[in-house]
Parts: sequence; structure tokens; C-alpha cells
Amino acid sequence: MSVTDVPVPTSDDVAAAADRIRGHVRRTPLVEVASGTFGVGAPLVLKLELLQHSGSFKPRGVFNRALTQDVPSAGLVIASGGNAALALLHVGERLGHAVEVFVPETAPAVKIAKLRRHGARVHQAGRDFAEAVVASEHRAAETGALLMHAYDQMEVVAGQGTVGLELGKQCPDVDTVLVACGGGGLAGGIAAWFDRRVRVVAVEASGSPTLAASRAAGERVTISVGGVAADALGASRIGAIAWEIARRAIDEVVVVPGEAILDARRRLWDELRICAEPGAAAPLAALVGGGYVPEAYERVAVIVCGGNSDPASLS
Amino acid sequence: MSVTDVPVPTSDDVAAAADRIRGHVRRTPLVEVASGTFGVGAPLVLKLELLQHSGSFKPRGVFNRALTQDVPSAGLVIASGGNAALALLHVGERLGHAVEVFVPETAPAVKIAKLRRHGARVHQAGRDFAEAVVASEHRAAETGALLMHAYDQMEVVAGQGTVGLELGKQCPDVDTVLVACGGGGLAGGIAAWFDRRVRVVAVEASGSPTLAASRAAGERVTISVGGVAADALGASRIGAIAWEIARRAIDEVVVVPGEAILDARRRLWDELRICAEPGAAAPLAALVGGGYVPEAYERVAVIVCGGNSDPASLS
Ligand SMILES: Cc1ncc(COP(=O)(O)O)c(C=O)c1O
Ligand SMILES: Cc1ncc(COP(=O)(O)O)c(C=O)c1O
Repeated sequence: MSVTDVPVPTSDDVAAAADRIRGHVRRTPLVEVASGTFGVGAPLVLKLELLQHSGSFKPRGVFNRALTQDVPSAGLVIASGGNAALALLHVGERLGHAVEVFVPETAPAVKIAKLRRHGARVHQAGRDFAEAVVASEHRAAETGALLMHAYDQMEVVAGQGTVGLELGKQCPDVDTVLVACGGGGLAGGIAAWFDRRVRVVAVEASGSPTLAASRAAGERVTISVGGVAADALGASRIGAIAWEIARRAIDEVVVVPGEAILDARRRLWDELRICAEPGAAAPLAALVGGGYVPEAYERVAVIVCGGNSDPASLS
Repeated sequence: MSVTDVPVPTSDDVAAAADRIRGHVRRTPLVEVASGTFGVGAPLVLKLELLQHSGSFKPRGVFNRALTQDVPSAGLVIASGGNAALALLHVGERLGHAVEVFVPETAPAVKIAKLRRHGARVHQAGRDFAEAVVASEHRAAETGALLMHAYDQMEVVAGQGTVGLELGKQCPDVDTVLVACGGGGLAGGIAAWFDRRVRVVAVEASGSPTLAASRAAGERVTISVGGVAADALGASRIGAIAWEIARRAIDEVVVVPGEAILDARRRLWDELRICAEPGAAAPLAALVGGGYVPEAYERVAVIVCGGNSDPASLS
């Protein structure tokens, strides 16, 4: 294993994040379902992180960074058209910070309108997420605002890792966690927390297999992205931090096709009246489709990490 | 307090029901939300019973009765166009019993189609629920099938009471439970379990205030029903069992208007991505609208008891 320059959060960092954000985030509940549910031949524990503030796990990382750093009066700035932006709005409102959001020029008008409705100053800049990130960096340099990254900052990854810490407390005998992976903030944080004490399986959508492609290439590669879960899992490159953590602490990567994701989302609704967004159904899709087959007696947890999609698509 | 002939379940009966149905029903989780959430000035604990099999609490009572009695080969028969029928279908499938459902002639075609799609033998009989009940009784006499009632049988009420038993274990310091009331099987069962150790507040929709009207009259009265939650809370008469339990163990009845119910349902979605059906949002409506105002330090639980409505109405 090579030595790199990328500092990554340790389980101590995740524990410190949990202390820091306590009282700001919800302890989301687990529900256990019997073997056979969803057609999966093992009992499952689902962590209902879609009940988190703003409808996804993202406030954990944002709160952790905003509470670690001094936040200047220019506030917080982020590049994101999705859940990280909604989380930033929530955190800004709760902590009393101004927020600015950069979205790519290609972002759908409805998304921008939604962010504006929630009170955000939204700028369109760049042709894709990577270019929007550059614009957010320029803006931070210009105004002095604290720059937030959707998945590739120490405090953000440590904050997302508190999902794993909570899960471990709520279900001490967990053997395996299946978790969706885009830029890898969530999967990386959870893997950092468990640090090989629990098997971590990262699940990617076939439209944006950043970690799988990088593993295949032996180095971080940039891919073009699309597919049904692109708005949540559609990072074009695995984060440097997640990549480094994944080397030692992410055991497996499973890639699931878009139809399997939509099928798993439908099953969550039919069986549990859970309205997950597509990206958050990816881990269950890995189980339903046989991409990950638990051993007998393996205690498997599934993170249902977001619920920001149109419920009408389930009716 | 007068002596009556109506036998009612005790907390022992509820405990026995819990043992009997264990492994057949889900232990539904709690989520705690901070004071200020939904605009309510107290922290709340929500019991997510909409995650139960078939999307409501109803299988608890049905399982308990089907596992207590000998079920003849003619199976189970019930009058219901709603969640009790869906629960019966689930129980029939799991336990391998034939099921038959009686719905009033006025039942919407879409509901009947839905029940048939789930594999039920559905009969339309009578102008309202009470007449459908009579038809189900005749059918049971004719075929020998075990007659199920949606809310007014000992084993059914005891089974619904396991919601309270679970809640008490999950949240031992609960002071008050707010629970929706139609025929009173759920509220009565929960009150029977807690037996005045916890304050039980029954919440009714203004379209079908069966318990409130009966309290006002000093005896069980039959009312005409309607409103946004009629399909779940629209019994026209409080059950004899619930009425008897309510005398001593239901502390308060709050009646909430339809708009307040829809508003509370919207808040559950906006704040928690929970897709409750209108009837299941009634208890929260009592808190949001000020119909029930918790004391400082009162630990309040809210039962979110069903999720069988069209999610498109939330988009
Ligand atoms: C619901 C949901 N799941 C998963 C992810 C992926 O998270 P990460 O980029 O940290 O891998 C996101 C990111 O936006 C998300 O919103
Ligand atoms: C979701 C929901 N809540 C509440 C009730 C009322 O239950 P009960 O008739 O036991 O009072 C029902 C009954 O169908 C229901 O389906």
C-alpha cells in the first residue's frame, strides 16, 4: 500500500464530528425486515437516513465543517445542484450564515427554481460540476466565504461517517454495510469510521461508476456520467479522500444498472411506504439483483440515504 | 362507572398478543424530532407504524385473531374497503388462509380493483359499512369462515394494543400518546395496554367524530361520516370495546378539521419525507393546530399509523 499525501479522517475524527453535530442532526432510525422481504434471502436492517434534515445525509458533513471552521460573514459557498445544496441551505438557516450555491449552466431550471424558493443565492457557472466547483472556489477567494465541497473535504467526510457511527451503536452486531457511492463522501466516511471492523460495500450506479472505474484503472479516473441516479450519484471522479480510504477500508464495489435502481425504489415503496430517491435505492438494488449476496448469518445493513425525488413517480 | 357486559382486553391480553404475533409483524421504529419541528413547541417521538406490513397497523389485530382462533378451511371474512382489508389479504397470504372481503355498494371502483389486484374475493353488499358488516356476518354463517371485524373484536383490539406495548419499550419515559381514532380499535388497544400509566389522547377527524359525539351524548351514538380521512377514520359508531375502554383509560378526545389534517400530512412530507395517509396525520394535526398543547417537559408520542394513499398528492 503506497503512502500518499492525502490526509483522511480517522475513526477519532468521526467520533469528534458526532459530538460536534449532536443536537443539530437527527438520529435516524433503523427498521428491520425479515428474510424474503424485497425478494432478498436475508434479513436486512435499513437505516432511514432520508428522515434527516433536508431529506438526505448531507447536513452531517456540512454541519461538521461549518462548526469546525470559523465562518466569515460572507458565509458558505458550495457547488451542487442537489442534496448538498439543500443541506447547505438548511445549515445556513440554522446557524445563521449566508449561503451561495453554484450550479452548472446545464442544471435544469426546475432545480434552480427550487433552490431559489428555499432562499438560496444561486449562480449558474461552468458546463459541468467540475467547472461549477472551480467557480465556487473563485467566489470563495473573492468574498472570503468558507468553501464547502460536496464530498471531498476532511470535515465533510468525517461528518458523513457519523451515519456509520450511529448505525454501529444501534445495531452492534452489524457485519456488512451497503452504501451508495457518488464522490464517495458517505461511503468513505462510513468506511473511515468502521476501519475494517465491518465490511463496507460501495454501490454505484452504472451511469456513474467512479470508484469501480478507478479501481479497474488502478488510479482515479474521470468518467462521463448519466443515468437515473445522476443527480445524487453523478460525480465524475471519486474524491481523493474517499479513494484513499477505499484502498484499505472499502471491501467491495458493486455497480447496479438504472432499471435495477428504479425497481428497488419501487419495492421500498410497495413493501415499506418509503419514498427513497433513486440514488438511495442503489444499495438495495445490489441485494435484489444479486450483485451482493450475503452469507448465511451475515447481518446486513442498508443505508437509505435520501428522499428528494418526486413522490408522484411512485403512484 | 357502570358495570357492563362488554368484555375488554387487559394489558395481559395485549402482552399475550405481542407474544403471539411476534415474528409476523414488524417492530416499527421511532424517530425523534426537536422542539420547533412542524411548528410544535415540544420535541416529539413519532412511531412509524406506516412501515408495517400492508402499510398500516391493521395486521396486528388480524394476526392476533387469526392465530388465536381455529381458522376453518373457508378462511377469513371481513367487511372493509380500506386498510383492514389490505391487512386481511396480507395475513391470509402469510398464514395460508382464503380471504373474502365485503365492501359497501358505494365503494369506489378503484378501491375494489386494488383489492382484486391483491388477490381478494371482493363482494359489494349494503349501502354503507354497517350493512357490509351484516353481509359479512351472513357469509361467515353460511360458509363457516372466521368472521373478522375491523375494530370491534377482543383479539383485534388487543393486537392493535401492541403498538402501545412496543412504544413503551422503545420510549420508557413517554407521558402522552396521541393516536387516531375511527372505530377505536387502535386507540382502545393502546389505552388498554397503558391502562392509565400514560395519558392517551384520541384524535378524530371532524368528518367522523364518533367518540367525541358519543361522549357528548353520554352513550354510543351513530353519526354520518365524511371528510378527507373517511376511508380510514370513517366509522359511523365507536366500537363497543373501545367505548368501554375509553371510559377509564382515554383521557382526552381532540377533533381536528380536514384542512388541518392535510396540512399536517404536508408537513410530515416536507420535514421528514414521510408519506402518511390523511387519517395517520390526524394526531400531528392536533399538535400543529393547538388542539392538544403539551406541558413543558411532557414527553409526547405520535402514532403515524398508515401510509396507504397516493403519493402523487404530495408532489
Ligand atoms: C441521496 C444521495 N445518496 C448518495 C449520494 C452520494 O454521496 P457521495 O458523493 O458522498 O458519495 C448523494 C450525493 O449527493 C446523495 O444525495
Ligand atoms: C391509517 C388508519 N388510521 C386509523 C384508523 C382507525 O382505526 P380504528 O378504527 O381502530 O380506530 C384506521 C382504520 O382503518 C386506519 O386505516
